[in-house]
Formats: sequence, C-alpha cells, structure tokens
Amino acid sequence: MLGKFIVFEGGEGAGKTTQLNLVNEWLTGSGWTSRMKGYVQGDYPPVLTTREPGGTALGKSIRKLLLDVTATGNEAIDEEAELLLFAADRAQHVSNCLLPHLQHGSLVLCDRYTDSTIAYQGYGRELDLTLIHQLNQIATQGLASDLTFWLDIDPEFGLARTHDREQDPEIETDRMEANEIAFHQRLRQGFADLARQHPERIVRIEAHQSDDVVAQQIQGILESRLQEWYP
Amino acid sequence: MLGKFIVFEGGEGAGKTTQLNLVNEWLTGSGWTSRMKGYVQGDYPPVLTTREPGGTALGKSIRKLLLDVTATGNEAIDEEAELLLFAADRAQHVSNCLLPHLQHGSLVLCDRYTDSTIAYQGYGRELDLTLIHQLNQIATQGLASDLTFWLDIDPEFGLARTHDREQDPEIETDRMEANEIAFHQRLRQGFADLARQHPERIVRIEAHQSDDVVAQQIQGILESRLQEWYP
Repeated sequence: MLGKFIVFEGGEGAGKTTQLNLVNEWLTGSGWTSRMKGYVQGDYPPVLTTREPGGTALGKSIRKLLLDVTATGNEAIDEEAELLLFAADRAQHVSNCLLPHLQHGSLVLCDRYTDSTIAYQGYGRELDLTLIHQLNQIATQGLASDLTFWLDIDPEFGLARTHDREQDPEIETDRMEANEIAFHQRLRQGFADLARQHPERIVRIEAHQSDDVVAQQIQGILESRLQEWYP
Repeated sequence: MLGKFIVFEGGEGAGKTTQLNLVNEWLTGSGWTSRMKGYVQGDYPPVLTTREPGGTALGKSIRKLLLDVTATGNEAIDEEAELLLFAADRAQHVSNCLLPHLQHGSLVLCDRYTDSTIAYQGYGRELDLTLIHQLNQIATQGLASDLTFWLDIDPEFGLARTHDREQDPEIETDRMEANEIAFHQRLRQGFADLARQHPERIVRIEAHQSDDVVAQQIQGILESRLQEWYP
C-alpha cells in the first residue's frame, strides 16, 4: 500500500475528533505532504479525514440508523443487527474509500475503526469476540492501521465532557452516549487489552491533558513515524 | 415454538407476493385460525404477513438502501456491504418480529428469507457460500422455516412479467431487477439445489401457471400441513 492509514480511537469525550482535525491542519500546513513518496496527484487528496461509521454515502445513512433513536421510530436495535450494520458500514468504507485512497498514496486520518467495535460491542456490550473478529475480517479485507492513537480518558471525566456538549441543543444525543459508566469502564479495558496485544500499532495517549498538550504529543509521535515512512 | 413459519421464495416475477396475500386471505377467512392450538390471544395476530428485507422499522430503512439506487446518491454498494445489510435486516426481523410472533403461536407468512440470500448472493453474485451460511446463522439464531414454497419460474418469463409491472411509473425500478438473465439462471439453480438438499422443508411450485391454479396448489399443500400441525 502506497499510503498510510492512521486511526484515532477512544471512549466518549476523549477528544478524538478534535485531535484528528488538529493533525489534519498541521499536516496540510506543513511541508510533509510534498515529501510523501508514492503519492499520486489526481482525484485523491494527499491527506484525507474520514470516520466510521459514516465515511461513505451509504455509511452516512447507516450512521443515522445507529446513532439516532428517532430514525427507527424508537424501535430498539437488536445487538447482532447493530454489529452487522457497523460491519456493513466498514465494508463499504474499506472498498469505496480507504483502499482507493491508500492505493493512490494518500495519508488517511480515520475517526474510529475495528478496535472501537472490539471495545464497544465486544468488551462493552459483551458480544462474542470471535464473531466480532470474523465480521471485522469480512469487512476490512485484512486492512489494518499503520498507526492508531488511543486517546485514553477516565470514563467519568470523558462522559462529563460530552454531557457539557449535550447542553447545546444543536447537538443530538447519541444512542451510544446514553449508556452507563460500567459499560464505559469495560470498553476502556478493551482498548487497554488491544494496546497491550498490538504495541507496534497502538500508541496510548494520556487524554486528560489540555488539547494543546495532547496535540503536541501526537504531533511528536507522528513526526517520527513520518520520518520512517518517508525518509 | 408454538407458531409456524411459512416462507415464499422465488426469482423475479414468480408471484411470491401475490400468492402470500392469497394464502393470507384464505387463512384469515377460513376456520383454521380457531383450530391453531397454542395460539395466545393478545397483541399478536393469528396470521402475520411480513417480508425480508423490510419487516421491521429498521428493516424498512435498510430495504430502501438496498433497493433504491438514489438512496445512496448513486454510490454503488460493495457486495460484502450488501450481504451484511441483508444480515442486519434479518437479525432485527428475527429477534423483534419473527421470534416473538412464533413464541405466541402466530402463523407467520414471510416474503423471502435465508434461501433468497443463498440463491441471489451465493449463486447469483457468486459470493462465498460459507460466509453466507455464517451470516445466516448469526442473523437467524438458528430459526428455519417450517415450510417454504419455492415458486419456480423461467427467468425470461418472470423478468418479462416484472418488465410489464415497471411500465407503471408508480412502481420503482429495483437494483435487483436491473441484473441480467445469466444471473437469474444461476439463482434459479440455487433454489433448485436448496430444494434438493431440504426436501422436507422446501416445496417446488410450478409458477408459470395462472395465479388461481398456483393458489389452489399451494392451498392444497398447506391444508395437509395444517392438519398435521393442528390435528
């Protein structure tokens, strides 16, 4: 693969999206993109920001079904159905977005990927991990990240942040965020286990710090990886 | 399971939906429902008609994504993503609709189920059959039909029927129906193989005949099964 695939993972309120956007600004403003060997000028941008669920047109519709309780007339979504919807979103995202960009040498910044499914559905909802790995395999065609930043935060601290956000009536309340503390403690454990199992791929970032401090740490780590990737 | 689960399968233009509705009229108008031992009066009707995809609120949204090309802004749906969406629809349908009705003794008439996925995605699109069986297993929790009517029709004959239907501008053109004859020949072979593998469950109906003749055959077969089920 000519490009590089960088994922931002973490629980609610960890600051994934903020940090992803800061990395995007830094990368596009820096000279790095001109040093990206293998990048093919054309329809694909040097840096792409995307997310799961919702990184494609199909995915946006799936995301609405998953996160907005009103989209199904308040019908509760069965746990296996939810897992299969995440997998459908991922299959579409991998084949229609991630692989084409990576094949053309883009640097892809993605908000959540397979580790979120393992942490949320596997550890959080305690669904069968073997089944989740099977579905991740089907959906990804084997595509793993080159580097994953796990923004680790104490769930009570992170949920308090999202609670402040929800006071703003413009921001919809997520199905996901309506869950309780114990669920979030379990999924944090999931990310911790994954980071221990994949130390070459997953870097833990202490996310209680200010956005600026977190951004500096991420930038430092990413810069040394970029030097390895594009010497 | 107190209730009975009857499925109508077949290629395009075979008359599944017409026949399902005729069985429904006949059953609700006949004395059979009063003889259904185990049926529990309450929120669940004695006879339920439903379909896949689209038998639940979530399923209706998924059906739109699957069948209406404009729902994804003409973005093509990846084959694995499509398969996972069918599985998500099925998981929701089984847990929120089929199982509760069957547990309360309803007679459930369903337009398409697992055999359609094997025929269309497995034989038609030639996706991996092991994967399809895995997904069917995940989605159904092991629920199989008690009786499946396979309405068998020559694809060219069936497609001509749907073509007539499509002249009516009120009826939307399906993604599915845009496929070619060879595809439909393969999926017919799929239903034939399934009928040979599961003779106790799948009954082949010659569907080139008039609706009335087909309805009489189905009614005859169903009546003898009902006598076995509710002696």
